[in-house]
Amino acid sequence: MDAAEFRKRGKEMVDYIADYLEKIEKRQVFPDVQPGYLRPLLPDSAPEEPETYENILKDVEKIIMPGVTHWHSPYFFAYFPTANSFPAILADMLSAGIGCIGFSWASSPVCTELETVMLDWLGKMINLPPNFLAEKNGQGGGVIQGTASEATLVAMLAARTKAIHRVISENEKLTPEDVMGKLVAYTSDQAHSSVEKDSLIAGVKIKQIPTDDKFAVRGSALRKAIDNDKATGLIPFFFCATLGTTPCCSFDKLLELGPICNEENIWLHIDAAYAGSSFICPEFRYLLDGVEFADSFNFNAHKWLLVNFDCSAMWVKKRSDLTRAFKIDPIYLKHGYEESGHITDYRHWQIPLGRRFRSLKLWFVLRMYGVKGLQEYIRKHIKLAHEFKDLVLQDDRFEICADVIMGLVCFRLKGSNKLNEELLKSINNARRIHLVPCHLREKFVLRFAICARTVESAHVQFAWKHIVDLANELLKVHKQ
Amino acid sequence: MDAAEFRKRGKEMVDYIADYLEKIEKRQVFPDVQPGYLRPLLPDSAPEEPETYENILKDVEKIIMPGVTHWHSPYFFAYFPTANSFPAILADMLSAGIGCIGFSWASSPVCTELETVMLDWLGKMINLPPNFLAEKNGQGGGVIQGTASEATLVAMLAARTKAIHRVISENEKLTPEDVMGKLVAYTSDQAHSSVEKDSLIAGVKIKQIPTDDKFAVRGSALRKAIDNDKATGLIPFFFCATLGTTPCCSFDKLLELGPICNEENIWLHIDAAYAGSSFICPEFRYLLDGVEFADSFNFNAHKWLLVNFDCSAMWVKKRSDLTRAFKIDPIYLKHGYEESGHITDYRHWQIPLGRRFRSLKLWFVLRMYGVKGLQEYIRKHIKLAHEFKDLVLQDDRFEICADVIMGLVCFRLKGSNKLNEELLKSINNARRIHLVPCHLREKFVLRFAICARTVESAHVQFAWKHIVDLANELLKVHKQ
Repeated sequence: MDAAEFRKRGKEMVDYIADYLEKIEKRQVFPDVQPGYLRPLLPDSAPEEPETYENILKDVEKIIMPGVTHWHSPYFFAYFPTANSFPAILADMLSAGIGCIGFSWASSPVCTELETVMLDWLGKMINLPPNFLAEKNGQGGGVIQGTASEATLVAMLAARTKAIHRVISENEKLTPEDVMGKLVAYTSDQAHSSVEKDSLIAGVKIKQIPTDDKFAVRGSALRKAIDNDKATGLIPFFFCATLGTTPCCSFDKLLELGPICNEENIWLHIDAAYAGSSFICPEFRYLLDGVEFADSFNFNAHKWLLVNFDCSAMWVKKRSDLTRAFKIDPIYLKHGYEESGHITDYRHWQIPLGRRFRSLKLWFVLRMYGVKGLQEYIRKHIKLAHEFKDLVLQDDRFEICADVIMGLVCFRLKGSNKLNEELLKSINNARRIHLVPCHLREKFVLRFAICARTVESAHVQFAWKHIVDLANELLKVHKQ
Repeated sequence: MDAAEFRKRGKEMVDYIADYLEKIEKRQVFPDVQPGYLRPLLPDSAPEEPETYENILKDVEKIIMPGVTHWHSPYFFAYFPTANSFPAILADMLSAGIGCIGFSWASSPVCTELETVMLDWLGKMINLPPNFLAEKNGQGGGVIQGTASEATLVAMLAARTKAIHRVISENEKLTPEDVMGKLVAYTSDQAHSSVEKDSLIAGVKIKQIPTDDKFAVRGSALRKAIDNDKATGLIPFFFCATLGTTPCCSFDKLLELGPICNEENIWLHIDAAYAGSSFICPEFRYLLDGVEFADSFNFNAHKWLLVNFDCSAMWVKKRSDLTRAFKIDPIYLKHGYEESGHITDYRHWQIPLGRRFRSLKLWFVLRMYGVKGLQEYIRKHIKLAHEFKDLVLQDDRFEICADVIMGLVCFRLKGSNKLNEELLKSINNARRIHLVPCHLREKFVLRFAICARTVESAHVQFAWKHIVDLANELLKVHKQ
């Protein structure tokens, strides 16, 4: 395919994407396919000779689309949102065209420098304390990670290195392995499973701190765990607080937890993967109070800030904590500027070596929407969640299972878990809307998350009516 | 920005990308900017109100482009290639439009299933042993990782878990920490720095095996290291072999190393990040002989197979080795199909949770080029490298420093390292072509890598003439 054909096909693809997103409502949100559906539809091996583009595009509609879960359908209320916006798509196209790899400053200076400045912009939008920013001579700064799980892992590894150094400096007889075996990390019993996975990768123990009746970790609970573990010779070194847990969007009590972490030399990482975007609205910023105690903070702009995946924004107070954790410099990655003191080589801030030019997406989105446009977007989602909550509350066969603070509503039929499992099954089998469940303590709960960019009140009203219809049917059967 | 404006702007962007790539030769391959150039050109914070798209696009040419290292310029001969092709860009556009997140089968079935089939296609193209394929009921299979460093890390973590289980099953008194402290990984003294970084992440020792005069690890060298380490109580558990090292594209001797690893219960991972693409040509497939001894194999289709970053293809013989290393299943990620036995949830195969629909890129590229088109592309690059090597050999002031097997030529002026450092500096300062250096043993060496999709003999000839001109000047000064 030469540039001339790309011009033609690229413009067709732009129309295809626009059509797809404009008419997505008409597609069934969750596919009908069964596991293994695709293989029989494809040849056994790659073609020897080139095929025509027409054939490939025909297959997109015939083979690919029937197997897609349409995350951007306004009837998609599952998981948490993943962002999708036209400015972000344009920026990603530009990034693909430039196709540079930004592992070091020299490998493409603007790829590094735009990222640093954009993370300062974004940090200011959520009013992060200035010591998290790079600015001109800051010790902190931001980086785009692929996912929140990687951000947590990077923070945990930096904390691990720091703790090992500290403990050995206090007792030179210990080896790194000795210390590793005693390190213990903490997180909420509501935290995302990826935190536990990160601890498996890092080879350190992790303990879940029990949450209170609002599903939040309190200072007292963390204090108890620390004291118990210290008494048995363990070394608490890392706490991952969650702002906006995956099951029910609860918020750990940073103002209680932060001082304890600082006192105990425990690295405080804050995972606000979903909820973090809301902090650009002054009325929700209070939820971030206490971030001043943290060592690192992360949220996914690719969830709720209209920047397509992947764009997980992470800040640290001391960039040297990250780079010390794995700085390794072979000569083919050296360039003439390292010693200048104001160079960032982002490969030392992350797990992979290579990286795309992702900050373009942030730049396009922040400028095309403006802060006000993004605030409106967040507020609209939260308003729709409250609208849904109010509908639930009007039907006394249902209950709300956790405070509705952001765009997530946890609800269920009053009754057994089995009943609610059946309700969810009938909802997802009907394929009109898509939800996923969670457990809150012993309860099986349905999660209704406001997700799509184009979701409106009418979709929420439709969804509720549909859920009630299915619940009516179910309850009728159960009465018989 | 609504869909109507996206149609207009998207088509302009398609033209912008086509123009950029068609005329890239006219841009200076390496930028003139100094560290910190960008910040003064941007506002201090994000705009409150939306800006016009025209302003943003103007800034792309004014602010962004002057800071880009143009990896797709035919005058770019640095690092290794990063792929860029029109079919891959189109597929990535489609992926951005669909914008699904494929962490589990249910989160978008086709995102998982196309990946599995494409990795089978690609595996067959390089004639991987069938036990690396998923096919219908295989125990192996492929996955797209972000980068080769992540693939190595995933393999190392799987090997670590396997080794810990094995050792503890033989001696139940040991704790996982005891075993971790004794584990030792190996790689070549020529291996990429990311392998060492991966061992830091995994918290295990790593040792570099000295290479022979061809910069290859031989069986005897590995055997010696294993025997020494076992004698001191260490537990060898992982060897990362390299096919196509970064400094000089040397190849470890798999046929010698493989049997030793199998005998010693050492996980053999093969990193063929750059060279792996060449194995689609039957005449280079011999370099992969011995892969049958490996547990995992990886190469970056995003380097040399015309699939834009990121698309690092990884295969394992036993998929359960990966999933056992970190399988954690919260309810909100459960779906109704796990127990059906032929479901792949790729989140258990990788470090991050989220993942884009990257297999579309492979599908478009394999079909639009066909196997023959891709073979031609590889052969053209290798031919150009030999053309450059022949030019170097005709000038007896220069020497070739390693066998030219793929698209990389390592060369230098006969003389001091200082002389060659100066030569490289004058080449990169002139900004007409871009190279990076390496060290081979004590020698400072210039690397000339055939990189761009559009590089032709004329560019190689120009580059050599330019290098000779600069060398002439340099040698003149040195004689004075």
